[in-house]
Amino acid sequence: MNTYLTTPTFDDIKQAHKRISEHAHRTPVLNSKQVDQKTGGRIFFKCENFQKVGAFKFRGASNAIFSLSEEDAKNGVATHSSGNHAQAVALAAKMRGIPAYVVMPENAPKVKVKAVQNYGAEITFCKSTLEARESTLEQVVEKTGATFIHPYDDARIIAGQGTSALELLEDHPDLDIIITPVGGGGLLSGTALAAKSIKPGIIVIGAEPANADDAYRSFKSGELIPVKNPDTIADGLRTSLGKLPFSIITEHVDDIVTVPEESIIEAMRYVWERLNMIIEASCAVPVAAVFDGKVDVKGKKVGIIITGGNVDLDNLPW
Amino acid sequence: MNTYLTTPTFDDIKQAHKRISEHAHRTPVLNSKQVDQKTGGRIFFKCENFQKVGAFKFRGASNAIFSLSEEDAKNGVATHSSGNHAQAVALAAKMRGIPAYVVMPENAPKVKVKAVQNYGAEITFCKSTLEARESTLEQVVEKTGATFIHPYDDARIIAGQGTSALELLEDHPDLDIIITPVGGGGLLSGTALAAKSIKPGIIVIGAEPANADDAYRSFKSGELIPVKNPDTIADGLRTSLGKLPFSIITEHVDDIVTVPEESIIEAMRYVWERLNMIIEASCAVPVAAVFDGKVDVKGKKVGIIITGGNVDLDNLPW
Repeated sequence: MNTYLTTPTFDDIKQAHKRISEHAHRTPVLNSKQVDQKTGGRIFFKCENFQKVGAFKFRGASNAIFSLSEEDAKNGVATHSSGNHAQAVALAAKMRGIPAYVVMPENAPKVKVKAVQNYGAEITFCKSTLEARESTLEQVVEKTGATFIHPYDDARIIAGQGTSALELLEDHPDLDIIITPVGGGGLLSGTALAAKSIKPGIIVIGAEPANADDAYRSFKSGELIPVKNPDTIADGLRTSLGKLPFSIITEHVDDIVTVPEESIIEAMRYVWERLNMIIEASCAVPVAAVFDGKVDVKGKKVGIIITGGNVDLDNLPW
Repeated sequence: MNTYLTTPTFDDIKQAHKRISEHAHRTPVLNSKQVDQKTGGRIFFKCENFQKVGAFKFRGASNAIFSLSEEDAKNGVATHSSGNHAQAVALAAKMRGIPAYVVMPENAPKVKVKAVQNYGAEITFCKSTLEARESTLEQVVEKTGATFIHPYDDARIIAGQGTSALELLEDHPDLDIIITPVGGGGLLSGTALAAKSIKPGIIVIGAEPANADDAYRSFKSGELIPVKNPDTIADGLRTSLGKLPFSIITEHVDDIVTVPEESIIEAMRYVWERLNMIIEASCAVPVAAVFDGKVDVKGKKVGIIITGGNVDLDNLPW
């Protein structure tokens, strides 16, 4: 399988931005006086929930897919995911005009299966264990010759995810802090690489559910510790931190903080009500970290990357 | 009572934009490939749901309040409203540092009462009839010397509401059509004045719930016909068309179309799910008009003003 396991450079991120800019939205940055008053800082939300497929994942997937050689591209791309990465790969492949093969667990929510199908991807179902996903994916890749696009353990993905921070700092060069959620670590590592290259003194922080705190424990111990079946509403962050992101995070990220489930739900609802935008529970994690005082933002300018907005409206947590 | 009952000029709208730009957000314009594919046009959403107080109403209210003379301003401002206009007047008055007096029906939703209180306005409750509201307001004005800020029958309000179309056409000068909801008519009339001044050939259309079709009937008959207790989910559009907006709409608006309740709810949910933003039922009315083919958008570039996002999350229509 193709993976790209060396740390991307800042130049890779700038190239990624150039490559994807005709395909991806330049997402808006919103702020709210009420949030500023509540926190004592000035908070700027970079709204990847308004990105294509409703999530930042489109940045990484489209960078990876549009950087393939003609030769590699012609057999298509493959991935295993039941979340936003699957939709992102499916859409980016459709835009490039190549096949996409997605391995999904047989118990994946129908709405997610349908979304991936709508983007024209071919789905192979498997049992819902990681082992089944990986072995099924291997079979698919063998049969089709498709290129595997890992959701985060891949330099092209990390470079693509870093383009969100690039835009945020173009719009607001005077930020003191950037906070992102951390799951597999693609976004946090890409953000750290971009932000520290542009502004070496900036603080970059990851926020994680306390119930899925493998990135926190890995960061603090210096050893990559996987998480096992974590019970958190932030479904995008249930995955374990990847190897390449871990090495970048260890070097470039200033801190990782954790928040409890009730704070995540409360912050999520607050953003829905006061900012009138739909965010996934995963995006509420950094917001909760600020509201709970886990990150001291008083008098500071703070960017938060709002990662996605794909929510089942019939299953809200309130 | 002070009202300003002559049609504002394009210069008034440009002045309004200059006046409010340090107080109001410049709201983003979003678009969606999925919406474009569904409609056959290119649809641009001007997102006033991300405006201060969560609605375009802040534009008009802040223009009116910041254009008062020191002499008039010192006794404060007054209005009667249970909706977004009340919050807009309260916040703009707070920003100018003058008192705001708001008359609200005693059965107004607690969340709306609280929002107005949070902006520091003094609330006087009254019975829920229009007569009670108007007579209570008269008493408040008499007692305090405050200036009455009408929600739509006022040139300063109309000029302020027109600034949204001004920004939309700055960002997308090649629009063929602009559609807004129509209730009291402040937004539609301001939009028509701005848009036709900037681009005389542009088509401006109002969209209204079929269950509250007084603007439609007034427009078609040439006579101002009020609506009586209309039963529509689009609570922002239950009000009757105002006199000054009616005269402007008659002269400058190309058409008014109506949509049924089910289409409004369907379009509202579609925008929540696909655009990941929270919109009120009122904003879904122009979206429904496009989805239902009431406005032919095939091959056209169309701006829709998304008017607000203040929704009770515990009372969703699905």
